[in-house]
Amino acid sequence: MRTEIHQPPKVLAFDIFGTVVDWYGSIEREVNAPNPEVDGGAFALAWRAGYQPAMQRVRSGELGWTPIDDLHRMILNETLSKFGMESMVEEQRQHLNKVWHRLDAWPDSIAGLTRLKSRFTLSTLSNGNIGLLTNMAKRAKLPWDCILSAEVFRAYKPDPATYLGVAKVFDLNPREVMMVAAHQDDLAAARACGLQTAYIERPLEFGPQGKDVSPDPRNTLHASSLTDLAAQLDC
Amino acid sequence: MRTEIHQPPKVLAFDIFGTVVDWYGSIEREVNAPNPEVDGGAFALAWRAGYQPAMQRVRSGELGWTPIDDLHRMILNETLSKFGMESMVEEQRQHLNKVWHRLDAWPDSIAGLTRLKSRFTLSTLSNGNIGLLTNMAKRAKLPWDCILSAEVFRAYKPDPATYLGVAKVFDLNPREVMMVAAHQDDLAAARACGLQTAYIERPLEFGPQGKDVSPDPRNTLHASSLTDLAAQLDC
Repeated sequence: MRTEIHQPPKVLAFDIFGTVVDWYGSIEREVNAPNPEVDGGAFALAWRAGYQPAMQRVRSGELGWTPIDDLHRMILNETLSKFGMESMVEEQRQHLNKVWHRLDAWPDSIAGLTRLKSRFTLSTLSNGNIGLLTNMAKRAKLPWDCILSAEVFRAYKPDPATYLGVAKVFDLNPREVMMVAAHQDDLAAARACGLQTAYIERPLEFGPQGKDVSPDPRNTLHASSLTDLAAQLDC
Repeated sequence: MRTEIHQPPKVLAFDIFGTVVDWYGSIEREVNAPNPEVDGGAFALAWRAGYQPAMQRVRSGELGWTPIDDLHRMILNETLSKFGMESMVEEQRQHLNKVWHRLDAWPDSIAGLTRLKSRFTLSTLSNGNIGLLTNMAKRAKLPWDCILSAEVFRAYKPDPATYLGVAKVFDLNPREVMMVAAHQDDLAAARACGLQTAYIERPLEFGPQGKDVSPDPRNTLHASSLTDLAAQLDC
């Protein structure tokens, strides 16, 4: 799908989990390697399912500001219990919790980002903490110009402070920033702040069960991959 | 000079202005190109000389949190008056103010950083704002893993919150972070927080007048350039 953009953005801000990296497949592989009897895919889904409720506890003020690493760890302990893996020792838990730093990129991510970087400033805009995003980028070779995170703005997406924060960091009008994500709710919140939006189809984000990737005409662009996005943006 | 390091750092945090990029030469060239009659070097020194007093007004609370771009602009207006350049129009002032985003790297910076990146996580730790540091890195091709700034910690160096903030972002002991700078006061403040320190000689930082680059034995390392630092750290 080719869409005419009247005012090209200057900065592209990327959601990370599910949009640029494959959390489901990466966690499934890492859980299953030493535990072939566990349903690694179900484990990944259960761990991820605890993410929004945990962030909601921070947003509501029930928890003070808490880095995602710590939220992941709280949910991990519950998930291990659900899957009968309570015997996992502390050192192993710490290592497994850092799997979110070791997520693999989708096959098109590096090529797409590299092309986009030739024309735009590329930043992360994730609820993941800065250290996690930096470690992930270094391992997976994601060529960011800048690592922005909820941690910088002390607010989680979809708080407007995050989307408007990117524009402010670069001294731009919100319209000059494009939010790129595989999640319509993230894009809707960005659009409400005046950002342009690009939806990326990631039909396997939740594994073989699939997900709805139908276009929303309110987005500026709809792309099947980051290489497709690069092509649509003439990179 | 080769120093034995007992515990290698994991993250290197770099001062930027003067350590990685040549503010004196870059500003001298940019001021002189359209104004050959002005002493561009003296202009650069005068502009830079306003930097610490301006930051002090923020540290003391006289000014609220103010990005460096805005501090640079306040000092620029004064500097233009001193040099008889009051006739410069607003658009030109805005452009000249952004010269801090367009500073050229020292000749060894890209090669040194590229080698260091193979073994360490490389972050900026500058009082420059995130947008400035990102624009500078993109133009000068500085291969940072992460852009950290006073803006992230809402405190200017030498506030301990900045040095300890780097360790906290990466969930490290301060000893696992090495501050790299061409300024002994920056390194002394980092050392007081428990960081390792590397001094980089930049004898031409203030132009042909030179500067004292003698070693301080309290630093972990003393290097003549970033490629020398890479060699000393076995990269």
